[in-house]
Amino acid sequence: MKVVNFLYEDIATHIEEEILNGVLAFGDKLPSVRIFSKQHNVSASTIFQAYYSLEAKGLIEARPKSGYYVMYQPKKYTPTFTDTEVEIVPKIQELTTDAMISHLVDLLSADNFLHLSTARPDLSLLPTATLQKSIKSALTALGADILNYDHPTGNVNLRQLIAGQQVKLGKAYTSKDIVITAGCTEALTLCLQAVTQKGDVVISDSLTYYGIHQIIKNLGLKVIPVPIHTTKGLDLNFFKRSLEEFPVKACLLTTNFNNPTGMSLSTTQKKQLVNLISKHQIPLIEDDVYGELYFGKHRPSTCKQFDTEGLVMYCSSFSKTLAPGYRIGYTIPGKFTETVTRLKRIHSLGSSTLSQQALLHFFSKGRYPYHLKKLRHTLHSNMLAYCKLIYDFFPKETYVVPPTGGYILWVAFPKDFDSITLFEAAKEQLLIIAPGQIFSMNDSHKNYIRLSFSKPLTEPIEKAMQVLGNLAKVLIHKG
Amino acid sequence: MKVVNFLYEDIATHIEEEILNGVLAFGDKLPSVRIFSKQHNVSASTIFQAYYSLEAKGLIEARPKSGYYVMYQPKKYTPTFTDTEVEIVPKIQELTTDAMISHLVDLLSADNFLHLSTARPDLSLLPTATLQKSIKSALTALGADILNYDHPTGNVNLRQLIAGQQVKLGKAYTSKDIVITAGCTEALTLCLQAVTQKGDVVISDSLTYYGIHQIIKNLGLKVIPVPIHTTKGLDLNFFKRSLEEFPVKACLLTTNFNNPTGMSLSTTQKKQLVNLISKHQIPLIEDDVYGELYFGKHRPSTCKQFDTEGLVMYCSSFSKTLAPGYRIGYTIPGKFTETVTRLKRIHSLGSSTLSQQALLHFFSKGRYPYHLKKLRHTLHSNMLAYCKLIYDFFPKETYVVPPTGGYILWVAFPKDFDSITLFEAAKEQLLIIAPGQIFSMNDSHKNYIRLSFSKPLTEPIEKAMQVLGNLAKVLIHKG
Repeated sequence: MKVVNFLYEDIATHIEEEILNGVLAFGDKLPSVRIFSKQHNVSASTIFQAYYSLEAKGLIEARPKSGYYVMYQPKKYTPTFTDTEVEIVPKIQELTTDAMISHLVDLLSADNFLHLSTARPDLSLLPTATLQKSIKSALTALGADILNYDHPTGNVNLRQLIAGQQVKLGKAYTSKDIVITAGCTEALTLCLQAVTQKGDVVISDSLTYYGIHQIIKNLGLKVIPVPIHTTKGLDLNFFKRSLEEFPVKACLLTTNFNNPTGMSLSTTQKKQLVNLISKHQIPLIEDDVYGELYFGKHRPSTCKQFDTEGLVMYCSSFSKTLAPGYRIGYTIPGKFTETVTRLKRIHSLGSSTLSQQALLHFFSKGRYPYHLKKLRHTLHSNMLAYCKLIYDFFPKETYVVPPTGGYILWVAFPKDFDSITLFEAAKEQLLIIAPGQIFSMNDSHKNYIRLSFSKPLTEPIEKAMQVLGNLAKVLIHKG
Repeated sequence: MKVVNFLYEDIATHIEEEILNGVLAFGDKLPSVRIFSKQHNVSASTIFQAYYSLEAKGLIEARPKSGYYVMYQPKKYTPTFTDTEVEIVPKIQELTTDAMISHLVDLLSADNFLHLSTARPDLSLLPTATLQKSIKSALTALGADILNYDHPTGNVNLRQLIAGQQVKLGKAYTSKDIVITAGCTEALTLCLQAVTQKGDVVISDSLTYYGIHQIIKNLGLKVIPVPIHTTKGLDLNFFKRSLEEFPVKACLLTTNFNNPTGMSLSTTQKKQLVNLISKHQIPLIEDDVYGELYFGKHRPSTCKQFDTEGLVMYCSSFSKTLAPGYRIGYTIPGKFTETVTRLKRIHSLGSSTLSQQALLHFFSKGRYPYHLKKLRHTLHSNMLAYCKLIYDFFPKETYVVPPTGGYILWVAFPKDFDSITLFEAAKEQLLIIAPGQIFSMNDSHKNYIRLSFSKPLTEPIEKAMQVLGNLAKVLIHKG
């Protein structure tokens, strides 16, 4: 008996074939529902149903006010995830990439390069005019008081506001739960310092922001890198074994949109993680600095949400969403709040009154949620556009999993590719990328690079991506 | 043979007798030269000579544009300097005053008290309007760039400017020698961190800002407190013995206008100090945060001036002269610059761009030297006026050495006086003072308090000083 197909199914099948054959490529825009229905003389609702079924399959994606885009990437090449392969049993890792990082950080502030790897907002993404007005209204409102010290834990009104912003995560905090810091970096440093001593063992993501390696190393801590997988999240069995087999004193993990992999833990994983740390009574320093930059419909969850014992020390900042240069971050350190407060006071007496007041006055204008929405939308569009450039210009062996939030793409080349060589070659062309191994705790991922989609797609960027793609092709050809 | 006195000598002797008898009291203003010469029908130059000879004896003091003031304080009471008495041989000291400090720091940011002990500029002393204009011109000049990160070591132009400010101390630095920090507190922390490991032994002033105790304690360092004397400076023999007998890794000393004692090292002592650290190859972290606030004719010298080997890590800030709340300080770490740079980057990525730009634009207006001159003049006047209030209202057993710079008076009561009791009694009256022992590395100086002359002398302040004096009298009477 022949199964009768609905019309929308036929249309969907036809489009699916075009996608799988490469007629429609990753990032291509589909015709609008209105135009498609006119062209094929079918009802708009039929086209909607067809698109909806393709979206359910993950082949295309709806973007608000923009239309439908192809999301399928033909699997020309599947990378090996070296972490999960190499690290089968938990072990303490030596961190060694200092020189490379110093070199890169120096380059990051060099003027005459095109930076294609920065994990921060391009200035065009920020509400400059409103922030400038906020500073001026703060100056008028405070007068000379803007020159004064504020409380070591930060301005009480700003803390209250940050506490209020957490409500959407289902938790009620007060200003007393918050400690304002010089960016998320200081938040992570102070939290780690609060719960560890030199020589202690901590767990951290096997792939993570190199600044975190350096914080750990600088505090004289030993680290067990726990494998992460771009799409599967954290290896929780490995994590559990680490807790059982080693005298672990703390964990420092990025739970949403890990830098560089874009990995997020699922809500289920977050709950399991909190259960594990509660069982072992080990504090978790949760880095959620990219949490607001999700491309989906809902803000991703946090471990802090499920923390009933105050063991999670939540850390974030406004550096990725508003003003990197203000150096304002914060932590909700749970039961360690008093210790973190003491450390903040000892280290620097408090944070910049000027920066705090500028943020406070910006928030009071009520435009932050709107700004975030717009920022997410732009980043999502940018991400797809940059993925398309990679698809168009990079070697066919290139592989990238489109991230679901954040600023960055974690781009894989074949196993024997040397991204340092690509880094050096790109530098010759005045292009800066980040070689993968500087994010690795075990000197792996030498065939990866981190790219950013923070900058709006202009002709020079397109050109630069083409140059980069060609350089990569030459290297692969040579190898 | 009778020695013939010059007329000016007779006049001087007469005034001297009035001072010694208490007819003219500490802080009293002498008649102007013009009026005095008219009253006594002698030439102005004779009066000048008389005043000059009294000034040479330290009995009176000329204040620019204001006249001559009595500086002599009858020695009703001579305090014992417990440090030099108790600590005869160098030994490592346990630091223990944490709880008291936390309590005090919490009170320092409480609103409903009159704070009589803060070692920072009263807001009335600061060039608020010019600083506000500077922020606005920075906003205009930079646009969106003001939201961006600056270099981890700070804005290059600001660093260049700070390097230039050091020229008056006879040293030529470049922007590369400077690391900008979150206040002097962070500068001291990073410098100490750069040259020590947990468990190491350091030398520090026996009496010093409690924040310094906490930095030392927090880094897990052991400390040898070296005795200081309000007028005689640092006990260099003790210092020398400490270096010889202990495995000292670093020294952290305030060389000008120590907080709380007001003590400065003489230029000779500074040279000797640099010789000693050079001989032993021990880094000296030089805290000179009050160095610009001298009441004399010349800026006091620094150890950094005499440092030829890059062993002196000079630390200062703009928190005491311009804007505490900006949290901008700096260090010139000599041969340890690279390490300090790395630590700054790891800890917080850099300092607030907004605060740095505001300072930069303020400096570019060229008003800083003028502001400093005015600030010094006001503080000098305030100091004399506050000393007079102590003379007028406090128990006759009170002793204070008028400091030659800074914001604070180090006030001694008799040996068995308990300044914590005075602190508590004052708090009841909504007055906050700092009890001496929180500045002591060995829990001494329980009979001292620190008072501030930062606030302009108003009726409420006069009243408060009277209340405080009465409370002290009651305590002495009871004791």
